[in-house]
Amino acid sequence: MSKYQSMSTSELESQLSILTEDFNGYKQKELKLVMSRGVPCPAQLDLSNEILHNSNFKTPSGVDCRNYGVVDGIEEGRQLFAELLDVSVSEVILGGNSSLQLMYETISRCMLVGVPGINRPWSKLDKIKFLCPSPGYDRHFSICELFGIEMIIIPMTSSGPDMNLVEKLVASDPSIKGIWNVPKYSNPEGITYSDDTVKRLAGLKTAADDFIIMWDNAYAFHHLTDTPDQLLDILAEAKQTKNENRIFQFASTSKITFAGSGISALITSNFNADILRKQINIATIGPDKIAQLRHFEFFKTADAVRKHMKLHANILKPKFDAVCNVLAKTLDGLDIAWWNRPNGGYFVNLRTLDGCADRIVKLAGECGVSLTAPAGSAFPYKKDPDYRNIRIAPSYPSIEELEIAINVLALCTKIASIEKALA
Amino acid sequence: MSKYQSMSTSELESQLSILTEDFNGYKQKELKLVMSRGVPCPAQLDLSNEILHNSNFKTPSGVDCRNYGVVDGIEEGRQLFAELLDVSVSEVILGGNSSLQLMYETISRCMLVGVPGINRPWSKLDKIKFLCPSPGYDRHFSICELFGIEMIIIPMTSSGPDMNLVEKLVASDPSIKGIWNVPKYSNPEGITYSDDTVKRLAGLKTAADDFIIMWDNAYAFHHLTDTPDQLLDILAEAKQTKNENRIFQFASTSKITFAGSGISALITSNFNADILRKQINIATIGPDKIAQLRHFEFFKTADAVRKHMKLHANILKPKFDAVCNVLAKTLDGLDIAWWNRPNGGYFVNLRTLDGCADRIVKLAGECGVSLTAPAGSAFPYKKDPDYRNIRIAPSYPSIEELEIAINVLALCTKIASIEKALA
Repeated sequence: MSKYQSMSTSELESQLSILTEDFNGYKQKELKLVMSRGVPCPAQLDLSNEILHNSNFKTPSGVDCRNYGVVDGIEEGRQLFAELLDVSVSEVILGGNSSLQLMYETISRCMLVGVPGINRPWSKLDKIKFLCPSPGYDRHFSICELFGIEMIIIPMTSSGPDMNLVEKLVASDPSIKGIWNVPKYSNPEGITYSDDTVKRLAGLKTAADDFIIMWDNAYAFHHLTDTPDQLLDILAEAKQTKNENRIFQFASTSKITFAGSGISALITSNFNADILRKQINIATIGPDKIAQLRHFEFFKTADAVRKHMKLHANILKPKFDAVCNVLAKTLDGLDIAWWNRPNGGYFVNLRTLDGCADRIVKLAGECGVSLTAPAGSAFPYKKDPDYRNIRIAPSYPSIEELEIAINVLALCTKIASIEKALA
Repeated sequence: MSKYQSMSTSELESQLSILTEDFNGYKQKELKLVMSRGVPCPAQLDLSNEILHNSNFKTPSGVDCRNYGVVDGIEEGRQLFAELLDVSVSEVILGGNSSLQLMYETISRCMLVGVPGINRPWSKLDKIKFLCPSPGYDRHFSICELFGIEMIIIPMTSSGPDMNLVEKLVASDPSIKGIWNVPKYSNPEGITYSDDTVKRLAGLKTAADDFIIMWDNAYAFHHLTDTPDQLLDILAEAKQTKNENRIFQFASTSKITFAGSGISALITSNFNADILRKQINIATIGPDKIAQLRHFEFFKTADAVRKHMKLHANILKPKFDAVCNVLAKTLDGLDIAWWNRPNGGYFVNLRTLDGCADRIVKLAGECGVSLTAPAGSAFPYKKDPDYRNIRIAPSYPSIEELEIAINVLALCTKIASIEKALA
């Protein structure tokens, strides 16, 4: 029970009036604080500026990166991702600057051509459904929405999606064609899938023979502490259950080097990769190899990437601490909001009382604090069924800005919670 | 009538035996000459190396290109393409390193979402057809083939596709949803559409309400002479007939700067562009702006691009001359092959006697001379109905190599033509 529920109406009204005074004070400050998207700050981008000074165009193996060709990306870059993710080079296909684009194209190809080896385009079927562990990444859900794929919410637990529900649904419904995952430091709750969850996903018994597992490993190396979460290798697990052709894993350097000018990778079974190389070659003669070469030469080894990520953590950890400390100072003990202290990734999820999230985001907006909007964005169709989740993205603002912004957020959370108690 | 048709069998056999001796001589040389794809040579790529030395990351208007965002590309780059193609900045959307990818995605969106403003996905219809002026660009046709779009060959004339046939077909068949075009210095015949052809395309009366014109202006600035061909502006013409929403024009710097690491542009009506920005933003947070900035800063003005293209012509013109001169020296007067002397672009098309093209490509291959294979690649389903077109791509080899390669090609053309006369 929230602290406000035990208070009398007059007590609540007096509290609200004090808080409203604070609120009006913030309003007058004309703040402009943006915590809406997981965008690296300039100091993080500066860590990789050396990339911009590289003017080479030949790979160590002799490929002229200025010219056409090499549809799956330069060998050295594929080797780097293979080492980082502990897979074979042949299982890695490099793309352009956006792993989201690789995901979009993967779903698009399933729609138009069918899953590799099963040439039955999903678009020819009456109804297609996808499982969407939620809260999740809004851009995944937007792809489904654009293509008319019906989305089914799967509640997240502290060890990943509710696997009992997942197993039950896919076993009986052949129109369920896949599941989205951000398996490590999930967006937005910072949850890493447990070994048991990964094994159960790898071993799913599905009614559909063309079921795929979208594995957006966006934060694979994005630790905030020296005791990072461990994620089981889904491709290796799926090989044991002979389900490796279901796995489509994605990674990128967007939050390692440059958010807008990194390089991306698709990791899948050799069977799939061989087919995809041919299909991708119909869409493009090849990715931007100059960008790939510059990335390879900046890092050269997987260890260098891991060391580089510690520099990011040095910048990000104090920001996450600031967010969590202000939340604790302002909201602890009220039982009106709960949040995670993630070991990595880019987000803190604030769970409010049911029905309060949109009101809080609106109030914060009135004070010049932008949060991901609508509040329900982390759910399919942008609709949180309980209207209670708010995503906080601490990476871009300074610590001073974050402290003000989170104080505003906490204030708005209190106001909305009292309004709810009074309603 | 070919010269060989007027010769007796014994004359032909004696000719063939002499030519076969030459052929065996080439075979022993173990040549490795590649004229199969329109790939720039290293000297052409070197013209733009300055791009690699630019380490800036902020646009003149203040955008940090390292970070996320700007889904339609940097303003300055859009301005440059707008100036080059005489359209409004708002009609330009920049993409990544591949205009082919922009074309693929355009068709893919039509299939899955429908043409902008008419949300009827083509994939939901029973049959979809596309008009394919041929010979044409094989990669266009591969996109249709992948998506199961039925292709209809439209013969090319010296002023563009046979417009009588185009007008007749589109007027009555609502399943014809579009037409491919390389309107300037066409691939592979070097034909530029006449004003009349452009006007008739812009004014097409179609049974389909979601008909589109794919306008791959790949060689817009790629002149070989000081008297370049002039192409009418299709978007301007289509505005006059209120058909501007049908126009999807594509351009890139792939053959201006770096073939594999250039930048691409999609030009369409403002109505379409506004919708596409939202749809593209579901596939990606934005294109690689660093590559766009480096291109903008290398050129800054449209005039600089035009001057730069003269440096390409200085390298390419002697190669095209070498091809045409050897063809003339070896094949003139025999009436067994015809070819174009293009004013621009990347190809010479050799038209042989009916039924001879595949045999010639095979024979040349035996001598180590690679031509686009199969010979029918420039036609839908890679099948030239008359088996008589061979695409020559002179850009990559040196002049010395070209002279040898074209001598081999001419020799093989004679052999195949005699074989035909003897058959």
